[in-house]
Amino acid sequence: MKRFSFNQATAKGWPLPELAAGCAEEGVTGVGLWREDVQEYGVHAAAALMRDSGLAVTSLCRSGFFQQPGWLEENKRAIDEAAILGAPVLVLVSGGLPPGSRDIDAARAHVGAAIGRLVPYALANGVQLAIEALHPMFCSDRCVVSTLKQALDLAAPYPPEAVGVVVDTYHLWWDDDVWAQIARAGRERRIACFQAADWVTPLPAGVLLGRGLPGTGCVELRRFREAVDAAGYAGPVEVEVFNEELWARPGREILAETIGRYRTHVA
Amino acid sequence: MKRFSFNQATAKGWPLPELAAGCAEEGVTGVGLWREDVQEYGVHAAAALMRDSGLAVTSLCRSGFFQQPGWLEENKRAIDEAAILGAPVLVLVSGGLPPGSRDIDAARAHVGAAIGRLVPYALANGVQLAIEALHPMFCSDRCVVSTLKQALDLAAPYPPEAVGVVVDTYHLWWDDDVWAQIARAGRERRIACFQAADWVTPLPAGVLLGRGLPGTGCVELRRFREAVDAAGYAGPVEVEVFNEELWARPGREILAETIGRYRTHVA
Repeated sequence: MKRFSFNQATAKGWPLPELAAGCAEEGVTGVGLWREDVQEYGVHAAAALMRDSGLAVTSLCRSGFFQQPGWLEENKRAIDEAAILGAPVLVLVSGGLPPGSRDIDAARAHVGAAIGRLVPYALANGVQLAIEALHPMFCSDRCVVSTLKQALDLAAPYPPEAVGVVVDTYHLWWDDDVWAQIARAGRERRIACFQAADWVTPLPAGVLLGRGLPGTGCVELRRFREAVDAAGYAGPVEVEVFNEELWARPGREILAETIGRYRTHVA
Repeated sequence: MKRFSFNQATAKGWPLPELAAGCAEEGVTGVGLWREDVQEYGVHAAAALMRDSGLAVTSLCRSGFFQQPGWLEENKRAIDEAAILGAPVLVLVSGGLPPGSRDIDAARAHVGAAIGRLVPYALANGVQLAIEALHPMFCSDRCVVSTLKQALDLAAPYPPEAVGVVVDTYHLWWDDDVWAQIARAGRERRIACFQAADWVTPLPAGVLLGRGLPGTGCVELRRFREAVDAAGYAGPVEVEVFNEELWARPGREILAETIGRYRTHVA
């Protein structure tokens, strides 16, 4: 349980103080937080609440979306928030194609340039940017970074303390190159965050909210955990599941089941 | 128009004789057919109908599904059907994980072995097997072959006249490695079939029936067509779109729009 981190999105809607109390009672020591929930509660208040509950913020989700106007200021704000929360890692989701565009090469090049613009600010604030590859089914509308290799190539020009990558089982499990890329990520000291969720079909409309708790799908979750370990990663293991049916249940019940499934299928 | 081929699935439900007449009237010379429709009409009758309508069967969709019991006999039947139809190419979709399995490496290895079992029969019947990589969102339940690279690696042990690959824009557009793999496919003389469809979001539930006609989505379709041409491919360009809204329209209307969009966005 020392490495387990409960990502807030797994129990979306659970008020932050209840989540903090629930985690403390279960012996959880880490949480992954989401910007919109933290903002609603107040960033400084959230930081105090976590501190008082003995919870480390293992990552802040998420910024990026470099195709949107005002992305630079928005990402700097996100870095500020991560610093206030003491989150060592800010997860970046690149955004998809600009409206009406088919130029995926240009969109990807822009992501690389945009990350470069953020590096000095991230370093100055002691926050590591973590590039997350999303499943290729999100390529057009959410994230033009589709593989761990792409994420690592984007990170390569910058020091690892400034730019790392997220290894998320839900997005990467289908890729036969992922094991080699995890090993490379370890060698290059880029694994900033490890997130676990399971792949379940049929996918729902819009495909965003169809993830499964560990053990409900077909992903070799323990193999992934062992692979990041073998690559030298010793950080938190976040379970992050977006699932509408799950969200309908009480937060404490979700947390308890998540812990149980983490133990059985990931740890 | 010489290269255009109308894949039957684009106007699902259009009776075969009407499709043949419609294609002949529009000056279409090639069609891609589907096994279930051909079987329903009668394989020999369908072959005669196509011949009498001046239509070449550019590909037969589809066989594969190597995780199902009886796959060997079923695939031999499919090769027989392709030979009867005079279709030079039989499209293979590998199938997903066996029920309850998480062993994706084993599933992929089995696909390679299964294709090897089919090679002599394919060669004897003059039918080229074409391995189709499906989009990674189909990896668990339809096709463990997710990239053109994987398809080419699976084909590599066998002569190109026995085993080629399908280049389908819908499944491959997100992959930044696809241009290099198309060039490789050309060098290795593996491009057996080129299929065009556009990527449209949001995806519908189950994600199968959300493809778009050329120009309705974000795929650089002409870039793909030029890439396969540059790789030495001079064969048919099939437009293959599964879309429930489209299917609700009359077959002739679908065909006319498909031809128009092919000219504007692909040719």
